[in-house]
Amino acid sequence: MERIVPISGKTDDVAEREQGSVFMPKFDEAGLLTAVAQDAVNGEILMVAFMDREALEATRETGLAHFHSRSRGRLWKKGESSGHVLHVESIRVDCDQDTLVLKVRPAGPACHTLAPSCFYRSLEGERLTRIDG
Amino acid sequence: MERIVPISGKTDDVAEREQGSVFMPKFDEAGLLTAVAQDAVNGEILMVAFMDREALEATRETGLAHFHSRSRGRLWKKGESSGHVLHVESIRVDCDQDTLVLKVRPAGPACHTLAPSCFYRSLEGERLTRIDG
Repeated sequence: MERIVPISGKTDDVAEREQGSVFMPKFDEAGLLTAVAQDAVNGEILMVAFMDREALEATRETGLAHFHSRSRGRLWKKGESSGHVLHVESIRVDCDQDTLVLKVRPAGPACHTLAPSCFYRSLEGERLTRIDG
Repeated sequence: MERIVPISGKTDDVAEREQGSVFMPKFDEAGLLTAVAQDAVNGEILMVAFMDREALEATRETGLAHFHSRSRGRLWKKGESSGHVLHVESIRVDCDQDTLVLKVRPAGPACHTLAPSCFYRSLEGERLTRIDG
């Protein structure tokens, strides 16, 4: 008796990826996920960066946010120079598993400009206005 | 008297981009910015997507979030099929102007799975746990 074999498992893969309980991070063609660091206490979005598999593993192993620096082409422990590390309290994963939200407790200003968040300006018309005092 | 002419204006460009009041979005080599949609009321991160110049302009003109669909290769008005549009209340710009936060008021579930947010699972060990009840 012949069995009908699906040509591809695409539909099942999507369902499993979206509804399942298996972590199957979907790295893009450059090997990266997008990661948003959000203050675990006040919900402020602190920064957005990219993670490759190495950065994801380093983050999970150490509990400190690591990213992949595209400009430097290497693993980047956030705060490695400044000491302003991000303690990761939990990680949320989006529907298609190509983006993470890191709920973090920052040890200092998250931005290299020393602003608490990288998002310190608001777009008003064609101008940017500082919102951090 | 000779004047020393900078070989490049790189330092000034960085200072202006980071500290200035001129909106100069820095699209990546694929012509995209990263955009994070955050609920303007409760601070929840709803979704993360990409914007090209067209999507950015459409968003600013209409007050509704538009993105660039990489899979479909076209402008994507969020909610164009479902009606679950995102009303954009304000836009924040990060230090190097390659990422935006859209503060939004969602007209319905932000995720195509009908979850309020795309980030409906938390990573616990190697497993994903639903956090939305």
